[in-house]
Amino acid sequence: MKRYNVAILGATGAVGQEMLKVLGERNFPINDLKLLASKRSAGTVVEFNGKEYAVEEARESSFENIDVVLCAAENDISEKLSPAAVRAGAVVVDNSSAFRLYDDVPLVVPEVNGEDVKNHKGIIANPNCSTTIALTALNELNKYSRIKRMIVTTFQAVSGAGVNGIKELNQQIKDISEGKAVEINTFQHQIAYNVIPQIGSFNEMGYSQEEMKLQNEGRKILHNPDLKVNCTCVRVPVYRSHSESITIETEKEITVEKARELLSKAAGVKLIDDLENNKYPMPLDSSDQDLIYAGRIRKDISGENSLVLWCCGDQIRKGAATNAVQIAEVLVKENLI
Amino acid sequence: MKRYNVAILGATGAVGQEMLKVLGERNFPINDLKLLASKRSAGTVVEFNGKEYAVEEARESSFENIDVVLCAAENDISEKLSPAAVRAGAVVVDNSSAFRLYDDVPLVVPEVNGEDVKNHKGIIANPNCSTTIALTALNELNKYSRIKRMIVTTFQAVSGAGVNGIKELNQQIKDISEGKAVEINTFQHQIAYNVIPQIGSFNEMGYSQEEMKLQNEGRKILHNPDLKVNCTCVRVPVYRSHSESITIETEKEITVEKARELLSKAAGVKLIDDLENNKYPMPLDSSDQDLIYAGRIRKDISGENSLVLWCCGDQIRKGAATNAVQIAEVLVKENLI
Repeated sequence: MKRYNVAILGATGAVGQEMLKVLGERNFPINDLKLLASKRSAGTVVEFNGKEYAVEEARESSFENIDVVLCAAENDISEKLSPAAVRAGAVVVDNSSAFRLYDDVPLVVPEVNGEDVKNHKGIIANPNCSTTIALTALNELNKYSRIKRMIVTTFQAVSGAGVNGIKELNQQIKDISEGKAVEINTFQHQIAYNVIPQIGSFNEMGYSQEEMKLQNEGRKILHNPDLKVNCTCVRVPVYRSHSESITIETEKEITVEKARELLSKAAGVKLIDDLENNKYPMPLDSSDQDLIYAGRIRKDISGENSLVLWCCGDQIRKGAATNAVQIAEVLVKENLI
Repeated sequence: MKRYNVAILGATGAVGQEMLKVLGERNFPINDLKLLASKRSAGTVVEFNGKEYAVEEARESSFENIDVVLCAAENDISEKLSPAAVRAGAVVVDNSSAFRLYDDVPLVVPEVNGEDVKNHKGIIANPNCSTTIALTALNELNKYSRIKRMIVTTFQAVSGAGVNGIKELNQQIKDISEGKAVEINTFQHQIAYNVIPQIGSFNEMGYSQEEMKLQNEGRKILHNPDLKVNCTCVRVPVYRSHSESITIETEKEITVEKARELLSKAAGVKLIDDLENNKYPMPLDSSDQDLIYAGRIRKDISGENSLVLWCCGDQIRKGAATNAVQIAEVLVKENLI
């Protein structure tokens, strides 16, 4: 079996660390592994499959002989280094939003549009976490009857802001329990015992960056330029796993029974919809695993050809690291690296 | 000035205690005050305006000479005792859901349909907290252009389940910080660091009781039997104040500018919509006061004549106690007691 030289760019962050874990869990055929990060993190020693690896400073010259780069860096780093990696002959799976909407960059959720990987010109983009979670849940419904409109409200975990998000929630809860003043560094406001209806900055229409992604990225992934999405993104004091309250309007009616049947067989989805026993998806249950949990499926009593559902997914795994590794697996399977 | 004999039924619970506080704050013209509760709570001494009151066991015979009863008891208690209070000549403002949808029982948010109080036959119902919060925020928009459809996702505080909800969140956070197993008593699942998409039991359509209230009660309060509401109710680890993510479809277009203008002058509403400075309603800010905070107003980019907004309100105050006292104030003002 062919083995590949893999680099992780941003290897010391929450997503980079999870990429490493997922590569190991899924036995990705690694020949040589290169861990890249900022100068500050260079020298950190990381263990993988019983071997120790020293993290190296990421530079434009870091990508010689690398087959595939999993990029978990911020936009500015990716903008600088991903093209350098491509020039060196690597294929980049980029978790930043820098290239997602470029025409020559496929934006891929393997269960939904894995075929698009074939059109890559060196960079393949990994979608925003909330987009990946929603579209994995909705894929089979959309295939059965095209989704025309989505109305979505998200409940997003603090780890969406990285390790600092978790630290901030913990510190605030501790400080409150000790009667101390709360410090705010990572989020715009106190997140402990609160919810914050802001993720990212706002555009002139009053939508946050995060709220626009589901429409912009959803249109590209579903190959449906007419898809309309109204999204409200909210940070909640949950450690991990995003939840989404979703209403979809479809071309023809999808009955609740049909939706349950489709989701019970959908790739990457676990149907949890047993109301008699108070079973439905929750962030606590869906953390630290790869499936998107979907449930609370019901007819929208306010509209025609409209369905309501609730889904949860680990935004660091399927929402980021796992999806990126799955894209790399498609590259391997299709002999594209 | 005429003064009234007031009874609080369920005086020792979270809402009953808040009713007492609100009566004092608003200088309700009280002559005699009677505090009623279950046998278990009888004898408890409560201070009000510098005087001590012993809580009495609530019985059918408790209402002689009472002018107005504020009922903060559960449905079964209200079903038994509210009619007894009416027979004794009192007017009951009932916070339970027992009588809300009865034809001869007005269901009232004073800012929205205060006039309906006049049609009472002894009982006036106080709406569900999430309904009161949403309709107070939406009232002026609905008057400008009738709301045809609402799509709502709620973020509901643990105190919506009373004092036990707060205790459970606190205990679970403490137990988790000490590495102990979490106990679940009040909610269906762990609420600490989690969100639970269930409030109340589910009907055969898959909607929870709480989710149906906004449509059923909203139709009655807005005198709009055709109002269609699709609601998803979610418990979140917040102490107090419910938040709601709302999309409304209206008969004609309401521009964002018009909506801001209307809400800036709406009774009972505080407009907080300054995105440049990251200002919008949050549960933490809207707790322990009476206004409904509204913001994040934007055009629904997925639909025509459709607007998106976010609101927060203290569900124990405007969502329950304050609204009940406001109804009693209408009774006084209109010489109905």
